[in-house]
Amino acid sequence: MIENIKYGVIGLGFFGEKHVEVLSDMPGITLAAVCTRRPHRLKEIAGRFNLRKTYTDYKDLLADAEIEAVSIVTHVNDHREIAVEALKAGKHVFLEKPMAGTVEDCEVIVGAAKAARGNFMVGHICRFDPRVSLAKAAIDEGRIGRIVSMHATRNLPANVSAGVLDKISPLMGDGIHDTDLMLWFTGSKVKTVYAQNVRVRDFKNPDIGWAMYRFENDAVGVIETAWYLPDNTPFTIDARMEIIGTEGAIYIDCGNTGLTINDCAGIHKPDTVYWPDLLGKRVGVLRNELSYFGDCIKEGKSPDMITPEESKTAVAVICAAEQSAETGEVVKL
Amino acid sequence: MIENIKYGVIGLGFFGEKHVEVLSDMPGITLAAVCTRRPHRLKEIAGRFNLRKTYTDYKDLLADAEIEAVSIVTHVNDHREIAVEALKAGKHVFLEKPMAGTVEDCEVIVGAAKAARGNFMVGHICRFDPRVSLAKAAIDEGRIGRIVSMHATRNLPANVSAGVLDKISPLMGDGIHDTDLMLWFTGSKVKTVYAQNVRVRDFKNPDIGWAMYRFENDAVGVIETAWYLPDNTPFTIDARMEIIGTEGAIYIDCGNTGLTINDCAGIHKPDTVYWPDLLGKRVGVLRNELSYFGDCIKEGKSPDMITPEESKTAVAVICAAEQSAETGEVVKL
Amino acid sequence: MIENIKYGVIGLGFFGEKHVEVLSDMPGITLAAVCTRRPHRLKEIAGRFNLRKTYTDYKDLLADAEIEAVSIVTHVNDHREIAVEALKAGKHVFLEKPMAGTVEDCEVIVGAAKAARGNFMVGHICRFDPRVSLAKAAIDEGRIGRIVSMHATRNLPANVSAGVLDKISPLMGDGIHDTDLMLWFTGSKVKTVYAQNVRVRDFKNPDIGWAMYRFENDAVGVIETAWYLPDNTPFTIDARMEIIGTEGAIYIDCGNTGLTINDCAGIHKPDTVYWPDLLGKRVGVLRNELSYFGDCIKEGKSPDMITPEESKTAVAVICAAEQSAETGEVVKL
Amino acid sequence: MIENIKYGVIGLGFFGEKHVEVLSDMPGITLAAVCTRRPHRLKEIAGRFNLRKTYTDYKDLLADAEIEAVSIVTHVNDHREIAVEALKAGKHVFLEKPMAGTVEDCEVIVGAAKAARGNFMVGHICRFDPRVSLAKAAIDEGRIGRIVSMHATRNLPANVSAGVLDKISPLMGDGIHDTDLMLWFTGSKVKTVYAQNVRVRDFKNPDIGWAMYRFENDAVGVIETAWYLPDNTPFTIDARMEIIGTEGAIYIDCGNTGLTINDCAGIHKPDTVYWPDLLGKRVGVLRNELSYFGDCIKEGKSPDMITPEESKTAVAVICAAEQSAETGEVVKL
Repeated sequence: MIENIKYGVIGLGFFGEKHVEVLSDMPGITLAAVCTRRPHRLKEIAGRFNLRKTYTDYKDLLADAEIEAVSIVTHVNDHREIAVEALKAGKHVFLEKPMAGTVEDCEVIVGAAKAARGNFMVGHICRFDPRVSLAKAAIDEGRIGRIVSMHATRNLPANVSAGVLDKISPLMGDGIHDTDLMLWFTGSKVKTVYAQNVRVRDFKNPDIGWAMYRFENDAVGVIETAWYLPDNTPFTIDARMEIIGTEGAIYIDCGNTGLTINDCAGIHKPDTVYWPDLLGKRVGVLRNELSYFGDCIKEGKSPDMITPEESKTAVAVICAAEQSAETGEVVKL
Repeated sequence: MIENIKYGVIGLGFFGEKHVEVLSDMPGITLAAVCTRRPHRLKEIAGRFNLRKTYTDYKDLLADAEIEAVSIVTHVNDHREIAVEALKAGKHVFLEKPMAGTVEDCEVIVGAAKAARGNFMVGHICRFDPRVSLAKAAIDEGRIGRIVSMHATRNLPANVSAGVLDKISPLMGDGIHDTDLMLWFTGSKVKTVYAQNVRVRDFKNPDIGWAMYRFENDAVGVIETAWYLPDNTPFTIDARMEIIGTEGAIYIDCGNTGLTINDCAGIHKPDTVYWPDLLGKRVGVLRNELSYFGDCIKEGKSPDMITPEESKTAVAVICAAEQSAETGEVVKL
Repeated sequence: MIENIKYGVIGLGFFGEKHVEVLSDMPGITLAAVCTRRPHRLKEIAGRFNLRKTYTDYKDLLADAEIEAVSIVTHVNDHREIAVEALKAGKHVFLEKPMAGTVEDCEVIVGAAKAARGNFMVGHICRFDPRVSLAKAAIDEGRIGRIVSMHATRNLPANVSAGVLDKISPLMGDGIHDTDLMLWFTGSKVKTVYAQNVRVRDFKNPDIGWAMYRFENDAVGVIETAWYLPDNTPFTIDARMEIIGTEGAIYIDCGNTGLTINDCAGIHKPDTVYWPDLLGKRVGVLRNELSYFGDCIKEGKSPDMITPEESKTAVAVICAAEQSAETGEVVKL
Repeated sequence: MIENIKYGVIGLGFFGEKHVEVLSDMPGITLAAVCTRRPHRLKEIAGRFNLRKTYTDYKDLLADAEIEAVSIVTHVNDHREIAVEALKAGKHVFLEKPMAGTVEDCEVIVGAAKAARGNFMVGHICRFDPRVSLAKAAIDEGRIGRIVSMHATRNLPANVSAGVLDKISPLMGDGIHDTDLMLWFTGSKVKTVYAQNVRVRDFKNPDIGWAMYRFENDAVGVIETAWYLPDNTPFTIDARMEIIGTEGAIYIDCGNTGLTINDCAGIHKPDTVYWPDLLGKRVGVLRNELSYFGDCIKEGKSPDMITPEESKTAVAVICAAEQSAETGEVVKL
């Protein structure tokens, strides 16, 4: 068993920083290197976590033989290139979701993952959320029968999405989560996709995306990603899912986090689940996920909670939704 | 001012009975006659409310010169015939929703209403729900800006819908409410409609209907009518609406009625809003609505809370949804 | 049957105005007179509702032989004098809660009500709330068995209570509601009372009151009245009650009103139940209550939904709580 | 830094088993021994986790020089003896809450902890719940000003408490949590205590306990522990806390766990926070807590998240509540 994995993080935006925070005190892992093109940010993060190895070019980090595993937390458009090179360099690769922005890119990555000797896993974080995994367990036990209707909401305040909408669309950025979960829950495939986007502001991507799926098992699944909630929305994310089966129903509500703080600045429902701070330590779902990734490396087993093929399929469905939204037509898969 | 309206109710199913209960003790109205084809039911209701005039043929009730106003609470397929005759007979006519099952029937009814000297109104009860009307007021005051995204849920337990699905579909039976409200809230028109139905049981109509609308003002509206919730669902109806605007958002939740009773038979959230019993009197939204209809007659003014044209438009949109669900194609209006 | 009750309202503060709004369009009632010591306010209200008879001295209104019924909506300290005189003048009297501020005053009023020929009723509005009356019905049907524990919350934002705390305490002003409901639900009596007040601001009364009751049937009931919620609290009132019985439990939540409006000024959950505006008409619980009072007069029957003795008992329990809070000792009743 | 702590668990009831499940796969800890007086249970647990060292007498486990740290998860009455001996034996000691059943026992344990060279910590698990610790952080930042009123609920279904009520009372078993949190949040002391118990069934302890505290900082705190909810209560625990301050308010809701499963057997809100299963691993708050205890040992620092004195104080307040409930009098501390 590997006792101590030397780990690097590529990409130090908001979420790359979360990776660093979680990995920096994870038993069995030594966070050894970080990489971003922005020297100032690199210095800030390296200083805060007392990291010796810093890189502005990811290729240099990948060339570092000491590094055994990496998190890739960059813009989605860079995923293909970096993931493929990291796999070729023999690293264990944790790639943030979505796998890539196109099906073609996904296929290249899937191929590279198959050929690689290191582990590969895309960060479908929701599968590591106990609310979701207990729902999955209940479904697999047959407690709600066959799934016939699903609705997923994953809405963000407008001020949060403002920094993201030039990089990714709501459907690709958040709809990917629920698309993956719907595929996972039903164990079925999407037959047809219809979608609509709404543009409110002048970003590269529309502010709001809706998609309606028909599954091969006859279920309907509807995806709602409105990245334009009022700025004073109390929750950091309004994420809910309703799953109706022939024998029962399941309701997941990730927006109500069990904590409401009403101070003179407004009403806040801070994250208590995904990566809350506890005594200076990031606990919660992201830790569960990265801990799982680390455990797989230590135990020398391949991560099977989510396969590369599954990650690709979710992207393919979202791409069909993007196409439908653009053409106004139903897309058949 | 008319002091005392002589009133008749045609159709004595579940909801006809609710009309009778509300009208039987409404000040300024004398419930004078009831009508159903089922003699046993006629006797039961007439006996309970001590009503002298009973009819098994609605034509006889309409021929009764004493009756000034009627509620038509029959199957939707009978709406056209009865409504047109009632209007021709000079009665004030309250017609339950939906106006009719086809646009053609709606047009005939709208024509008859225009030609009639009596008042005419379709029972879009939700407009008389304070939760809804206060939302409408907030929208009209500009408090949430321009509407960009809406989602409406109106789901029923499977045991409740079992008695209804041979008569009407979820979209036509319940989606009509939210379609009307979306048209009312946006003040816009539906441009395109896409819909999906799911059939679970062997009724004439599918158990679940979903529709996605694109409005002329660019908003997206999504309608969910899953008439297949588990039988032990605690609420009588899971009715919710989310309205996202450029300056704010509104959430209506009609399922959480403020009362949860957990007895040994399960968890119940009884209706406290639509037509709850209070001291043997039906209060709530249905009373508000019928009281408004009566007030218009008394004051000699035409009901303007909902026009026949609006009722027809909602039916036209639902018919387009039914067509889309059947063909799998997007329908343009 | 009396067809048209001539009605007067004494006291035109916030709630007196609500009475006027409800009574002004109530069938079978003619709002004929209003009274307040403040001439400017008198003119404003009379003008708005086109009322001919206005009084600055309630004695003059009581001397008006045309007036058959009155609402007394004044400060609690004036209740005894005005109610007794109104009853002596032969009017039907609707007195706002609490009946009076002392048990002695209550006894005088109860005596006057017994001796009077007119109806008398104290406005325990919650009994006319369907959420509450359906809970009472479930309890009476034995659905939750014998009650063993109750907790009632009735909390107000600090900016709302600021205008009230010089007139009445939280326990007397709001705790009276839940004390009455606990007595009604259990059908028992309070044996011992312990209470604590907390003073935050410099008003005549403390901002927060808590009381713990032991009932003769062995149940514990706890009353929470914190009139010091943050000003940006979304609900107009945070009113909840939990009733645990040997066979089940009931939860009433009057704060979640089914409507959330998130505009740029904050999050609001407006009243949709007590006296919401619908098409320019005040509907809801206050209308239910005043309608009941009017119906009793019309039908020549005495109001039995709440008796004067019951109103007095609730005041007696609250007075014991006030005494306990002052002395720090348990008070036996 | 200690790399691998040899750990033993004493007591293998419901919660001892949870300790075993969490510790069995915790990095840096080797679960080496378990102990219970029940041979059958010992065999079951040891077999499931493949544990070599098993003991029926805790003294033998404590005599095992290899064991460096222990969890004591026995009946509260055994805490004093076992904890003192474990400390004397030089072990690091994690003692489940409450510290002990009497103040005298607590004092002995505190003394032993002071004299010991090993770490000592009582398992006040709630302090390791992100919902709670984020609330504490907000309070410490002054976001809600000075605390003036608190209400804590920690209610259990009757079928869950049936197995516990002969061992511990609701106030001592669950009220201890919220008493500790109120002391922690206010940073103040309890001055007076008043409490009431309600007995429903024939167990050694009453089914329901209520307590009202007055703090030195003038706040009121009310504790509700009704271990008699209906068996079909959807949540495993109805745990809520309301904290009202001069500048804001905080609401913690641990009952709504974000997951509702409605299958044909009823409505369930399973635990997703305290110790949910994720991929065969117990994650959540208990893991956070034991991980903290382990980290302190590894880093050679004393646990300061909760001190022995604090654990003792919470017990002292609960003992005062038990005394008040018995005598009916207010107890001064």
